[in-house]
Amino acid sequence: MHQTRIKMIYKPRLKNPLLIEGLPGVGNVGRVAAGYLIHELRAKKIAELYSPHFLPLVVLQPNSLVHVLNMAFYLYKGRKRDIVILTGDSQSITPYGHYEICGEIINLCKKLKIKEIITLGGFASGRSPKTPRVIGATNSEKLIEKYKKYKIDFSGNHNIGTIVGASGLLLGLGRAENIDGLCLMGETVGFPFLLTDPKAAEAILKVVTKILNIKIDMTKLDESVKEMEESIKKTEKIHQEMLSQIIKERKTPTHYIG
Amino acid sequence: MHQTRIKMIYKPRLKNPLLIEGLPGVGNVGRVAAGYLIHELRAKKIAELYSPHFLPLVVLQPNSLVHVLNMAFYLYKGRKRDIVILTGDSQSITPYGHYEICGEIINLCKKLKIKEIITLGGFASGRSPKTPRVIGATNSEKLIEKYKKYKIDFSGNHNIGTIVGASGLLLGLGRAENIDGLCLMGETVGFPFLLTDPKAAEAILKVVTKILNIKIDMTKLDESVKEMEESIKKTEKIHQEMLSQIIKERKTPTHYIG
Amino acid sequence: MHQTRIKMIYKPRLKNPLLIEGLPGVGNVGRVAAGYLIHELRAKKIAELYSPHFLPLVVLQPNSLVHVLNMAFYLYKGRKRDIVILTGDSQSITPYGHYEICGEIINLCKKLKIKEIITLGGFASGRSPKTPRVIGATNSEKLIEKYKKYKIDFSGNHNIGTIVGASGLLLGLGRAENIDGLCLMGETVGFPFLLTDPKAAEAILKVVTKILNIKIDMTKLDESVKEMEESIKKTEKIHQEMLSQIIKERKTPTHYIG
Amino acid sequence: MHQTRIKMIYKPRLKNPLLIEGLPGVGNVGRVAAGYLIHELRAKKIAELYSPHFLPLVVLQPNSLVHVLNMAFYLYKGRKRDIVILTGDSQSITPYGHYEICGEIINLCKKLKIKEIITLGGFASGRSPKTPRVIGATNSEKLIEKYKKYKIDFSGNHNIGTIVGASGLLLGLGRAENIDGLCLMGETVGFPFLLTDPKAAEAILKVVTKILNIKIDMTKLDESVKEMEESIKKTEKIHQEMLSQIIKERKTPTHYIG
Repeated sequence: MHQTRIKMIYKPRLKNPLLIEGLPGVGNVGRVAAGYLIHELRAKKIAELYSPHFLPLVVLQPNSLVHVLNMAFYLYKGRKRDIVILTGDSQSITPYGHYEICGEIINLCKKLKIKEIITLGGFASGRSPKTPRVIGATNSEKLIEKYKKYKIDFSGNHNIGTIVGASGLLLGLGRAENIDGLCLMGETVGFPFLLTDPKAAEAILKVVTKILNIKIDMTKLDESVKEMEESIKKTEKIHQEMLSQIIKERKTPTHYIG
Repeated sequence: MHQTRIKMIYKPRLKNPLLIEGLPGVGNVGRVAAGYLIHELRAKKIAELYSPHFLPLVVLQPNSLVHVLNMAFYLYKGRKRDIVILTGDSQSITPYGHYEICGEIINLCKKLKIKEIITLGGFASGRSPKTPRVIGATNSEKLIEKYKKYKIDFSGNHNIGTIVGASGLLLGLGRAENIDGLCLMGETVGFPFLLTDPKAAEAILKVVTKILNIKIDMTKLDESVKEMEESIKKTEKIHQEMLSQIIKERKTPTHYIG
Repeated sequence: MHQTRIKMIYKPRLKNPLLIEGLPGVGNVGRVAAGYLIHELRAKKIAELYSPHFLPLVVLQPNSLVHVLNMAFYLYKGRKRDIVILTGDSQSITPYGHYEICGEIINLCKKLKIKEIITLGGFASGRSPKTPRVIGATNSEKLIEKYKKYKIDFSGNHNIGTIVGASGLLLGLGRAENIDGLCLMGETVGFPFLLTDPKAAEAILKVVTKILNIKIDMTKLDESVKEMEESIKKTEKIHQEMLSQIIKERKTPTHYIG
Repeated sequence: MHQTRIKMIYKPRLKNPLLIEGLPGVGNVGRVAAGYLIHELRAKKIAELYSPHFLPLVVLQPNSLVHVLNMAFYLYKGRKRDIVILTGDSQSITPYGHYEICGEIINLCKKLKIKEIITLGGFASGRSPKTPRVIGATNSEKLIEKYKKYKIDFSGNHNIGTIVGASGLLLGLGRAENIDGLCLMGETVGFPFLLTDPKAAEAILKVVTKILNIKIDMTKLDESVKEMEESIKKTEKIHQEMLSQIIKERKTPTHYIG
């Protein structure tokens, strides 16, 4: 495999579709929110994304089956519009890979005529409030007007300087293809990095469901997070360890050019 | 050379072929097992794989001839089915390279109509038992049923979280091409990394020969390992040293963007 | 996005055009000078350059809009000749990327029939003189003759051994395409790296405006630098932090090839 | 510039041509020997090689002209056969780049119908003998027979385990294209890395000139080395510093995936 590629399971006919992205990141807010949405909406997998910019390994599951790291797209056929939800095990392990992967996701959006993206993530505020704020960022001024009624904080009153990885780049690269993008970031403590924060996920899910005008049962989120956390921790631990090892292996002397 | 490529020595006609892979890794279990199998079966080289993701050097042999790092495919024409055995000096030195190399190996499998892969490796349990366990992993549930009679441990009762490199990725990438894959991991102490473990290799060879219904003389394994170890240690030491040097060379200050 | 690409906003008709480049670097001399020139000449944006070799993030602006890192080309229609000015948020974060990005810039020059490039930068002398020197470097001997009357120091009496990044490579790669290049480097202290030096920028602007035979109001430079500095510091801090994190994330042990 | 490329200055008609390579490495033995050969034979430049795998900078020369890092091919029209000599400022700074660059050099050999390569280098023995040994390595057994009469040591009685970079890879990659290759390594102390060793260069030049049946004045070698050393030291210092900086820049914390 030489390049990131998306494998369609089937090509759906879509009605005014929208993409929601939630991948691993701070507090796993995006990943948990997207995962819960997929579960509660019983969304069906329509495509998988594989990339040589993920870690070069498979995860060995308790049932002795191996799992290749990937992202996946799920479809929920809504009444008024269809929702494609993107989640996955991993983001790129190289800076370059983020651009390649997000470029392919944008290409898929164009093929599926997706004109709007909502990306979900967390932001580390250092504190853990009762009611986490949901900060908004967009790639188009008109979206602020459209979305500000949904309790999204567009005040700029925060310490977020950049949005790293897919949540940010999808908005950035989407702009050039006339895809509108909204990023929702739920407030979370931010440390330890491995800690999953269901409260921040709940906060952004409340906003997302209002925007989409759908209803989901939020009572099982805590329970669901507990179930997901085990597997999330595992994959993240692997990433930390592998990335360190890649460097660690490179530490004793001789001359390079002989 | 810009990409990994496989050079066919000749294109064989194959009868229901199967690929066995054994490359450098923990305890050199896979490499030793594959090497011994090639030797005992007098398998013939049919192809070589070269990659820009190996170390950029040649090994100078005692006879003054240089040797480019590569992987090679050997063929044993069996009574019922043909066996292609893959071994080599090295795996990729970059994460990306693992995907490129395994992608090319899977491409070759498709060309040769290989529908099944058995990958061989070791797993570090921290202890050195008299009878090393052979843990199994697969990319297809039905293979567990098919193979569980061969004293392969599919219990999930171990601490292996991931399978890194070709042994894992061939199964993972193979799945998408409808290639069934079984990974056999022989238990080994796991340290020092350079130590080759013939007992773990023997354990997986016993399973492999039963699966393939072939007989090989196991008495010469110890002797053979002693012969191989010299050259294996050399290549691995080179890898350790080179990779460290690549980093080490990069350690004194000035400003980068002038 | 798999490769660096330049997105034309419109394709201008140009009269004997010249490219001026000023990107982030020592003392931000080049970036500040180019930025001020664009502002004072009210140059119009004609193209944007995006690259997978920038950091994989978007900058979140106070108005809640995201900004993808990019370089941009601005056009000033002069009386005798047209001036294209290149500036941007960032340079490549990989050595390879510098070549790819500069290669694309040179390609654009060829398309727009730009035959001459002036690149702007700083050089760290360790001291902060009242009248900073402007050191010149070129890719063609005849340019020394042509430009030496403009108070450019071609004496070779300095400690600059190399010119890193776009300011140097554009001259180097331009030579092969018969594009003449002049690099002007304003003397600056050089530490701390984040400090922006308006005096060095002013020194090279004085030379540039004389060469181009244009007049700009230099009195607002200090003020302008103060405004720019906030945002420059922010982007640079991000770069420092991100690049460190990429390494930092890679620091705990396990075995790589399992 | 996205890939290594060779720019022909003119395409020569060649008579039974042979390539001699001498690039930077241990003791600069190969580079010095190739450089002296070019000078003494008044060989003419016929091609230049540029690569995005060199450092992304230009060298600023005392005459205010910039110089892009490159390799170059020089031609000496001999009585019986023509000699193409390859030297340069740098080798690849990435492992992958070595393969790309050597692949392009081999491609040129094929175009020019070069069937034989002699690569020149040093090997660090830790001692500095009066008469440095010249160790030989080849990619074809028959060459040992052919060349052993020239005081080349093919005994295998040394501690060289690998040949890194172009001197080794050209032989390795050449084999697959039926290009015969001989590597001559002159014995040198090996530290400090920056020290240029004219005696080792002289030792291999004596062998090379005998093989080629040409005569060159060896008396000016010491003098010539002194002249070359200044510029060699400069380029190498730059490499050390730049490569360190690339790493050094990456050292302070924040979270990567936000």
